[in-house]
Amino acid sequence: MKNTPKKVNADLQRERDQCTFNTQELTHLIDGGEEKTQERKKREEVVLNEGIHLEEVPSEYLSHKEKYELAVKKACKLFKLIRRLQEEENTGMENYREVLGGYLGSAILNDGSPLTLHYVMFIPTLMGQATVEQQAYWIGRAFTCSIIGTYAQTELGHGTFIRGLETTATYDPNTKEFVLNSPTLTSYKWWPGGLAHTANYSVVVAQLYTKGKCHGIHPFIVQLRDEETHMPLPGVKVGEIGAKLGMNGTNNGFLGFENVRIPREHMLMKNSKVLEDGTYVNSPSSKLTYGTMMFVRVVLVNDMCNYMAKAVTIATRYSAVRRQSQPKPNEPEPQILDYLTQQHKLFIGIASVHAFRSSATWLWEMYNNVTAELDAGELDRLPELHALSCCLKAVSTADAAECVERCRLACGGHGYMLSSNLPLTYGLVTAACTYEGENTVLLLQTARFLVKAHQQAAGGHSLTPTVSYIAAVGAGRRSPPWENTIEGILTGFQRVAAGKIALCVANIEKRQKNGLPYEDAWNMTSVQLTSASEAHCRAILLQTYYKETEKVSARASPALRPVLLQLVDLYIVYWALQRVGDLLRYTSISERDIEQLQTWYEDLLQKIRPNAVGLVDAFDIRDEILHSTLGAYDGRVYERLMEEALKSPLNAEPVNQSFHQHLKPFMQGKL
Amino acid sequence: MKNTPKKVNADLQRERDQCTFNTQELTHLIDGGEEKTQERKKREEVVLNEGIHLEEVPSEYLSHKEKYELAVKKACKLFKLIRRLQEEENTGMENYREVLGGYLGSAILNDGSPLTLHYVMFIPTLMGQATVEQQAYWIGRAFTCSIIGTYAQTELGHGTFIRGLETTATYDPNTKEFVLNSPTLTSYKWWPGGLAHTANYSVVVAQLYTKGKCHGIHPFIVQLRDEETHMPLPGVKVGEIGAKLGMNGTNNGFLGFENVRIPREHMLMKNSKVLEDGTYVNSPSSKLTYGTMMFVRVVLVNDMCNYMAKAVTIATRYSAVRRQSQPKPNEPEPQILDYLTQQHKLFIGIASVHAFRSSATWLWEMYNNVTAELDAGELDRLPELHALSCCLKAVSTADAAECVERCRLACGGHGYMLSSNLPLTYGLVTAACTYEGENTVLLLQTARFLVKAHQQAAGGHSLTPTVSYIAAVGAGRRSPPWENTIEGILTGFQRVAAGKIALCVANIEKRQKNGLPYEDAWNMTSVQLTSASEAHCRAILLQTYYKETEKVSARASPALRPVLLQLVDLYIVYWALQRVGDLLRYTSISERDIEQLQTWYEDLLQKIRPNAVGLVDAFDIRDEILHSTLGAYDGRVYERLMEEALKSPLNAEPVNQSFHQHLKPFMQGKL
Repeated sequence: MKNTPKKVNADLQRERDQCTFNTQELTHLIDGGEEKTQERKKREEVVLNEGIHLEEVPSEYLSHKEKYELAVKKACKLFKLIRRLQEEENTGMENYREVLGGYLGSAILNDGSPLTLHYVMFIPTLMGQATVEQQAYWIGRAFTCSIIGTYAQTELGHGTFIRGLETTATYDPNTKEFVLNSPTLTSYKWWPGGLAHTANYSVVVAQLYTKGKCHGIHPFIVQLRDEETHMPLPGVKVGEIGAKLGMNGTNNGFLGFENVRIPREHMLMKNSKVLEDGTYVNSPSSKLTYGTMMFVRVVLVNDMCNYMAKAVTIATRYSAVRRQSQPKPNEPEPQILDYLTQQHKLFIGIASVHAFRSSATWLWEMYNNVTAELDAGELDRLPELHALSCCLKAVSTADAAECVERCRLACGGHGYMLSSNLPLTYGLVTAACTYEGENTVLLLQTARFLVKAHQQAAGGHSLTPTVSYIAAVGAGRRSPPWENTIEGILTGFQRVAAGKIALCVANIEKRQKNGLPYEDAWNMTSVQLTSASEAHCRAILLQTYYKETEKVSARASPALRPVLLQLVDLYIVYWALQRVGDLLRYTSISERDIEQLQTWYEDLLQKIRPNAVGLVDAFDIRDEILHSTLGAYDGRVYERLMEEALKSPLNAEPVNQSFHQHLKPFMQGKL
Repeated sequence: MKNTPKKVNADLQRERDQCTFNTQELTHLIDGGEEKTQERKKREEVVLNEGIHLEEVPSEYLSHKEKYELAVKKACKLFKLIRRLQEEENTGMENYREVLGGYLGSAILNDGSPLTLHYVMFIPTLMGQATVEQQAYWIGRAFTCSIIGTYAQTELGHGTFIRGLETTATYDPNTKEFVLNSPTLTSYKWWPGGLAHTANYSVVVAQLYTKGKCHGIHPFIVQLRDEETHMPLPGVKVGEIGAKLGMNGTNNGFLGFENVRIPREHMLMKNSKVLEDGTYVNSPSSKLTYGTMMFVRVVLVNDMCNYMAKAVTIATRYSAVRRQSQPKPNEPEPQILDYLTQQHKLFIGIASVHAFRSSATWLWEMYNNVTAELDAGELDRLPELHALSCCLKAVSTADAAECVERCRLACGGHGYMLSSNLPLTYGLVTAACTYEGENTVLLLQTARFLVKAHQQAAGGHSLTPTVSYIAAVGAGRRSPPWENTIEGILTGFQRVAAGKIALCVANIEKRQKNGLPYEDAWNMTSVQLTSASEAHCRAILLQTYYKETEKVSARASPALRPVLLQLVDLYIVYWALQRVGDLLRYTSISERDIEQLQTWYEDLLQKIRPNAVGLVDAFDIRDEILHSTLGAYDGRVYERLMEEALKSPLNAEPVNQSFHQHLKPFMQGKL
């Protein structure tokens, strides 16, 4: 019997028929050209054809232990495939990112993977921080997965504040070894993925002691388990940290040391060194290590786009299929996508994907420029890039979490089902609000840069491009007349950010005058500082999206162009309305302007409505990757919900054993 | 060996030593008097002494099926205990609410229970909608749990919009039976708790057909499973709907009928009837059925207070124990509770518990008054109560979800651990945003009432108390001078709500004039309508909390009184700052006023800081109920995290089998 595709839901088909633009054109545009789309599709085909993502029993029904065992099985198969592809295509390391990044990784390793940190942190750290000799020794083995590593930095007692780490590595010149110890309970490593039962090696970040002096944190490579038996080595206390909100396939572990000795050569010495006699030789520039951290944050912004795209695809298609209520008697129940409140929840999500994608691209270019300058010894733009990557990471993860959760809630009760894939997606996204720098801490780091920029501007110094608006706005204190246009809003957001930064500086100074030390004045102002930092980020996001769309839409067909412009307008007007209080405080916007913006926003929702399904179709996420009963391309929502329910092991028997064991005795009063 | 209590964390002890008020006094005040506190504590002692909440393996490590089996076991033990207490204390049905409600229920049935709907919906529906004869037949059996029931209303295709339900019950006068059918896939019942494998009876809501005519939805009692064997009866398709974001102990089920026949007497006929010959006799008042729904919503508001209290207790104690960063060189790392940004995240949560508790109490009194009037045949205040219960349910569940999630994120990575109990709490709270009426739908129901009230005011009619401000504000269009005080803000929030309602009405009318039918004009304005509805709710929340605190604080000791007032001030100033855009639009607040409010808010955070731990201690939630590694009374956060981690079944073996099966072959290139 031939496997004929099931019929597409009629409502969904109608949506596609009425779409005013060619969705393929938009897909190519998102991918960066038709060729890139073809490459991506081919890669997806190759990887998904392996069937690694297929599960006999959906993983949500497994026990915690079984989930780990499944994750190991899948990860081994996937990384074996990547190894094969690398050999076939001779592409080296970039390949794994192509397969794991984008949509694909999350399709197969949807609950995290115990091998991810081997590729994402262990190998890159070796490449970035090991000497040439060390690389010669380690990288080959890591590359072929003869050893599996992870990256152990965070401890039970310290996360974002890495100077506070407590693990010690004390050099013993007699044996030319480092002795690793975990002096306190809080010094135990805690969180590294794959650390619990998977990795047999780890990069360990520890406070380096030599000749009785502490030289701060440095990376060491430490063997944790026997390569043959996988048993933990003597003095190595290793295990898993327990169940979490999500990512239960990652095998997050704890790690403690009791006088574990490693050879001197296991300190990664590209930057700093300890000589045989114990002499410490400092790094030429400790700023170089910022590179990896920033790289990860840039990648994160892109990941957030993918998650949002998934969530909004699921919720939009479901909203086209779901019909509910009867506002007009004698008319059929409308698709819930026809309700303006639903459009309000979803369309900003669609626009946000494009907005953050623009910023990710732009940040990526800036990252490449700055690292090229770094290689040439120029560090000038590093603080700016650092400040940007901090606030963009914070705002993109926070916005993505809100977007995914709003999409889930917009699907009503069915969004609460794990088979919708929205809860699992939320679990992955919300984790990013905390890891790679906790969001509030990151916003305050950006704020520190902004306050400095404000002071430089006040002192007449010139500013780097992304903050030059602070000087421009500062020069003309009086609010110019408000222009109720996109350009007007963009300028308005710059005024808001500049105004907030100025107010923070004034408040800090006032508090200092009242006798507070600077640190306390800063702390008392920190709620306002995070808000100023976010305002700065918003101004940049809006500006970048707008400029990027101007460029991109010039190349688009006459059918697609207005749609792209509607989305960017929607995004900017939405945020203007969200921040109307700020605009009223820092610009001369009037009540009349606001009411016009509201109408403009409502009209935009209506204009986008007929293309909503086309817009999410253009994200071109395969069903295997969406992995959702509510979001599949054919819209067979209810059929899929029932099919998935029937896979529950509880449904394999009409009567569960607990009836005989507990329920019946209880009902008969015999318990 | 005697079980000596472990030492309390020194930081936490210091917090308690510096608390300026007697936490017991506040506990009594929250409980409603010292006697009530004693009662509650005794009840907690009795129930927890049974040890039902103790788990050999923490439930987060179990498979989906094992979770259900554990939930049945626990629920049977708990309800056996309740039955025993009812007999001992001769208290009847109220008792189960005392045990299940408040904090206790969630401690034992922390992932939901398959028997809850038996008590919360099945028995109450029998009591509310069965005739005296029917009650005589059913209630005894239900009460002793000889039969276990549930309440099947929601279907795969329809939730909040109950008129759209598709299940049919067709009367057959020949056999004097109803024939139940599920004509479509979407007509399958979907979601009812306990329905899957636990209940053997259910109230089923179905479209009643008799003499060829549909009379809308009515409740029927239907046997689903054999009382002896528990096998599903012929024609009954029943099973579970699958894994969910939370509440995986509830055994949510699906249910379809294929010509299932039930006796005529199984229709619950207190209100409407079908006579033997098939004649339909209408209910005297269909509004009566609103009662149960409103009752549940009132109870929900109270539940939300309990969840918020748990979350904020966990996060506040953790923040007193956790130390991080080093803003001042040579000084120790501060407790994270000292950071203003952390206070900003937590203290509003503490205040929100009190605010919603005030509103819950007030709504409860109103509910009792109105139902008393109902019994006397007066229906006048029903719409007002309905409108209030709708928006308070929506706002309290949304605020609680945000509060719990903010608390979780405020605990950094450790909040992501299930052992923190914050993720599970979020799962329970966010579900409430959807069940018992989806929040956006509920806000629009309130909006409908508000628009009507506005029109009545414009027509010179008098308004019911909670909306009388609409007329008062409407009368004086010009904004009076802004008073930057609590009272000024309260009036300001009324102006905002009235202003938003008026603007909505104007926009609807404008759209009608432009040719849109009323329903479409309503839809186009619905984003603004939900906002107006929320503004109305905020005005009432602030007002009620303020008035309630005035009363309560008059009775408080001189030490406690200022603390209560600080909390209410914090709550009101916080919301003023959150809604500064609205205040700028609808009142004459100035930039200077706003800056003063911001400073006032920051000062309040600092004033509350020394009492933060005392304030959450006063919620008096036992460790067994908090069930959190981060929130226990003694503050042994890190010790507990490690103890819990070691309970993971993965940690029972040093090497997991997947190493031999998958990982080693992969590493050796043999896979």
